Amino acid sequence: MDKDALVDYEYPDLDPLPTKIQKETIPPCQPTADDMLYHICITAISLVVMLILAVLARRSKAAGRQKGLPGLLSPVNFLDHTQHKGLAVAVFGVLLCKLWGLLISPDPLPFTNGTENKQNWVILGVFYYPALYYPLLACGTLHNKVGYVLGSLLSWTHFGILVWQKIDCPITPLIHKHYSLFSSLPQIACLAFLSFQYPLLLFKGFKGTEKGNATEDLSSSYYRDYVKKIFNEKKSKNNSSSSIDKPKLPQRIIDAVKSYIYTPQDAFRFPLKLAISGVISFITLYQVGLLLISAVIPTLQTARYGVDEDIANVLAGFQIILSPDRREVVRIVVYYMWCVEVCYISAMTLSVLINLAMLMRSMVLHRSNLTCLYRGDILNVYNCQRSIRASRPALVCWMGYSSFTAAHICIGMVIQTLVFFLCLLITVFLIIIPIFHGQNLFLLQTAWRMWPFWLMILLSVLIQHITARFCFIKKTASTLDLDNRGNLFLLTYLLFPVNVLIGVLLALWRMIITALFNIVHMGRTDISLLNRNVEAFDPAYRCYAHYLKIEVSQSHPVMKAFCGVLLESVSQESKAAQRPRDAEEGIQLVQQEKKQHKISSAKRARRHWQLLYTLVNNPSLVGTRKHFQRQTGEGFLNGSLNRSTKVENKKEAAAEETEAPTVDN
Amino acid sequence: MDKDALVDYEYPDLDPLPTKIQKETIPPCQPTADDMLYHICITAISLVVMLILAVLARRSKAAGRQKGLPGLLSPVNFLDHTQHKGLAVAVFGVLLCKLWGLLISPDPLPFTNGTENKQNWVILGVFYYPALYYPLLACGTLHNKVGYVLGSLLSWTHFGILVWQKIDCPITPLIHKHYSLFSSLPQIACLAFLSFQYPLLLFKGFKGTEKGNATEDLSSSYYRDYVKKIFNEKKSKNNSSSSIDKPKLPQRIIDAVKSYIYTPQDAFRFPLKLAISGVISFITLYQVGLLLISAVIPTLQTARYGVDEDIANVLAGFQIILSPDRREVVRIVVYYMWCVEVCYISAMTLSVLINLAMLMRSMVLHRSNLTCLYRGDILNVYNCQRSIRASRPALVCWMGYSSFTAAHICIGMVIQTLVFFLCLLITVFLIIIPIFHGQNLFLLQTAWRMWPFWLMILLSVLIQHITARFCFIKKTASTLDLDNRGNLFLLTYLLFPVNVLIGVLLALWRMIITALFNIVHMGRTDISLLNRNVEAFDPAYRCYAHYLKIEVSQSHPVMKAFCGVLLESVSQESKAAQRPRDAEEGIQLVQQEKKQHKISSAKRARRHWQLLYTLVNNPSLVGTRKHFQRQTGEGFLNGSLNRSTKVENKKEAAAEETEAPTVDN
Repeated sequence: MDKDALVDYEYPDLDPLPTKIQKETIPPCQPTADDMLYHICITAISLVVMLILAVLARRSKAAGRQKGLPGLLSPVNFLDHTQHKGLAVAVFGVLLCKLWGLLISPDPLPFTNGTENKQNWVILGVFYYPALYYPLLACGTLHNKVGYVLGSLLSWTHFGILVWQKIDCPITPLIHKHYSLFSSLPQIACLAFLSFQYPLLLFKGFKGTEKGNATEDLSSSYYRDYVKKIFNEKKSKNNSSSSIDKPKLPQRIIDAVKSYIYTPQDAFRFPLKLAISGVISFITLYQVGLLLISAVIPTLQTARYGVDEDIANVLAGFQIILSPDRREVVRIVVYYMWCVEVCYISAMTLSVLINLAMLMRSMVLHRSNLTCLYRGDILNVYNCQRSIRASRPALVCWMGYSSFTAAHICIGMVIQTLVFFLCLLITVFLIIIPIFHGQNLFLLQTAWRMWPFWLMILLSVLIQHITARFCFIKKTASTLDLDNRGNLFLLTYLLFPVNVLIGVLLALWRMIITALFNIVHMGRTDISLLNRNVEAFDPAYRCYAHYLKIEVSQSHPVMKAFCGVLLESVSQESKAAQRPRDAEEGIQLVQQEKKQHKISSAKRARRHWQLLYTLVNNPSLVGTRKHFQRQTGEGFLNGSLNRSTKVENKKEAAAEETEAPTVDN
Repeated sequence: MDKDALVDYEYPDLDPLPTKIQKETIPPCQPTADDMLYHICITAISLVVMLILAVLARRSKAAGRQKGLPGLLSPVNFLDHTQHKGLAVAVFGVLLCKLWGLLISPDPLPFTNGTENKQNWVILGVFYYPALYYPLLACGTLHNKVGYVLGSLLSWTHFGILVWQKIDCPITPLIHKHYSLFSSLPQIACLAFLSFQYPLLLFKGFKGTEKGNATEDLSSSYYRDYVKKIFNEKKSKNNSSSSIDKPKLPQRIIDAVKSYIYTPQDAFRFPLKLAISGVISFITLYQVGLLLISAVIPTLQTARYGVDEDIANVLAGFQIILSPDRREVVRIVVYYMWCVEVCYISAMTLSVLINLAMLMRSMVLHRSNLTCLYRGDILNVYNCQRSIRASRPALVCWMGYSSFTAAHICIGMVIQTLVFFLCLLITVFLIIIPIFHGQNLFLLQTAWRMWPFWLMILLSVLIQHITARFCFIKKTASTLDLDNRGNLFLLTYLLFPVNVLIGVLLALWRMIITALFNIVHMGRTDISLLNRNVEAFDPAYRCYAHYLKIEVSQSHPVMKAFCGVLLESVSQESKAAQRPRDAEEGIQLVQQEKKQHKISSAKRARRHWQLLYTLVNNPSLVGTRKHFQRQTGEGFLNGSLNRSTKVENKKEAAAEETEAPTVDN
């Protein structure tokens, strides 16, 4: 075996016997910025900031803005596509890192000394941290310069103290000396992003460029761009679909690889919740990977460096004599332990890479699922007809979705690492090492001794394929049909016992491939691991399906574009100074406006025709419609709009304006 | 713990210490009917029988019958629904039992002494046994009294010798003293069935009732009955489908249970290959169950009876001191071993019961899949559009299908028993025994000590469900919509960390349910264990899908009914004495007939119209049709017939008989 190749990875040079390495003892480090003091101060500061914000909110409401205190209490519009997502994503990232630290560290909250009753402190921490970081989100809600200044100050404080603490105490005794430092890197990154983002927003606020586009959801051009895009797409799709040739194998492989690579599309933006899920998943990946490495590898290395000649005695006690020479025994044991380490690191790396690929694939699938559902292609996504609307379980799943993805990636990675590690160990110790050393080849020898069996299996499979191709299938003018039925039946009978043996191999292969598929896809919530008929029993997939329902029913881009157009026309008509800020408010506004203003009869007639035409083309809306008979024009807002309808709608309405049937009665 | 309840299962009364039981030594038994001699004789007899049958076949061919030697070489029409299936099923059963014995027993073939080079003898046996039992099938092929007499004699010989051997040597040293006897029961049953069936056929032959209906496939009334039935069904279905109410929960549970119970339907018969698969699966179930019990339980029992006071020393060597009293230690160890036995037997029983339920469910699913495909409902079965026609991989899968099901049940049962055994062991030793004895409750105590955590999880879930139901969902006139968005977003943010913890529990639950589902359904080939998008990567399901293709494309009952009608009219026209025996011959006959007779132009016109109408209503046939432009009328035979088309077809043709467009050019 080539020794030089191994030197890279600290392969110990064993000619001088390894001296016992003293285990480094790391003294517990107390940072200058005491954690407890810091938390008391920052909690007080956060409270003050919230009070200032509340006063500001109250005043700005008095000044005529729509959002006031209620806006302060819901700083994130999760159903938004156009919002600047950075702030929310960063705060969620910080929160996840804090939760992770809460579970790992022996004293979860800084207010406690020692580890007694850790559990209760964890429970407290689970609710404390969201409250602590809430002001960081709330400062961005008011779209106010004072808010941005407060946000900048707060995020600088958080960031500064954290960096200071890490510089003070880069080495801690927890798990591994550098674990604590590396573990806080995502948190530092998120806080740095916030510290940079708030001043940027403030700067934009001074320049006056911020207010107009980024934060106002319905007035954003995104939804209208989306609608324009799908009109354009439709034409190109019709052209391409005329050639439904089955692609060739290389093309199919390229397509399969491409489907794992996420490329952004102009006309599509992820909803905020999916963006959060993506970043959260990535952070989880990093944290779990870090923990898996730093919890196991140092221990293994310590054990490897600690191997001395006593090991020969210990092994002899178990009747294992690797070599008569004691130094040789040490050499072999160290070598085997080094192999175990390599296997573990490989398994972990493989798991991380697989999960990264899965994350990308998930994003591709999220996008395709969302666009499918926007199109109304429910069957394609759910494999059955479902009603896309809000319901209790759907809402609960929607609330938890981002968290669930993080948890699934975590559990998935642990299981993957474990399974891959075992598989690699088996491969290395039963196949690779025996081949290199030319001993203990019993597995390979058994397989080799069974060559007549393998030959029989191979020949039987070949015979079946060849006879099927050349004897039993007749190609009459490019249609395939059976031929020589008698001989086919005879061969089927004679090969029955051989096929049972082939079937055993197939069954083993089935077991392996099923287990592997499920383990690899364990961390993904967007596909079900179960058979298509019982998909809904997979809790993760069920949650995802429900999540999509809420997302699509509540934030359909075409519906939002329509709401935007509607609100614009209303505000033009009423010349109202304030502009509505989100869909819900808009809907209420429309209703108020409608009650106030008398609508001219010509307009009313046109609306009736539009409504009737919409209902004829979207029968699914009729059920909803019945209960809205008093409020005309709202039929558009319920359920998804068929885009082709909308266009034809206008033409039709223009053509048949004169007659207005009475839909109301 | 109630002791009396345990006495039933040989719970050893330990007050007198168990005396070491001498292991029974079973002398190898040599039956009077020596196996080697028997095999040499029966091979010779079989050869003679085959020669006689060949002579008979040649003579009967000379006498004008269609089948001769080729018929003898393909005694089973696997694509047949109406054939008397007993003979074939019984022979396949015998063959499977022989294969099983071949793999288990140390000297696989009677021609060998000792076990050297067992593998090669197994390979030989795999091909020898199908040949040996071939005459048992062939005797039934000729529908000839001499054949039946020979068949009766042959099956009596096989049956008699086997029973004689088993009476001579009921106890053998292999695995367990009674294993050999119990293992041969299915074989005895199959041979007994054959011994009874051949004389019955002979008797029917003498009475003259046999020839007319049972064996002639196309002239059977089954296919016409099937067509009649589906016409009747259609009406009743239309009536019932008008009420598409969602069934209530109890009804859905009853439906789910019903879907696992197979009830025969008049209008449906399984194809021969599925019937064979069913019986083969059942025999495999029996054999694997028998092997699992008899290989493990006696060993465990022997070990249990052999426990004496030395065990205390052995355990003390491992630092395990169960009790200071040595007799108490023996008592405890014996009790634990008895628990292990109970767990194992329970796991095995559970596995057998599950597989029986799965077998029934499979039969229900086979029937529904076949009828679906007959209807042309490909999307429902395959979840994608596929062409139902013969191809090389499909034919190979079709040939091996019965064998593969047996192999999958075998592997599935082994894995199930293993997994259930482990789960039961964990349950019993970590939960049940600690609860009964009130010690080592660490698992339960840990769970109990975590009650604040469980309470937090429970409350969080409850809060989310209750708020979702009563605060965030507004029911405006029976349509559900979101309400209080601000508070919803706030709650979503605040509960993010708790939801991560809930997600971890969900992920564990997902893992358990996925693994359990796949293990339970391991033995079933008719469902895929993979996600719906990659179903085809499951080798067993892929094989099943291909199998269905061949079955449906080659033995569609409506097509067969049509062929029957066609052949009948042709034979009436030509007044030919002999009647064609299967679809293939029929098709060839029709083509010959067509070439010979000039078809009148009126008939030709009608056919053109029929053809055109069929093609218009079945666009999928057009592709096939193009290549058959010279041979009119055959379009019906390719692909599945749409039944509604066929009726309307005739009306249309009658109405527009006068004009005959030129389809040929």
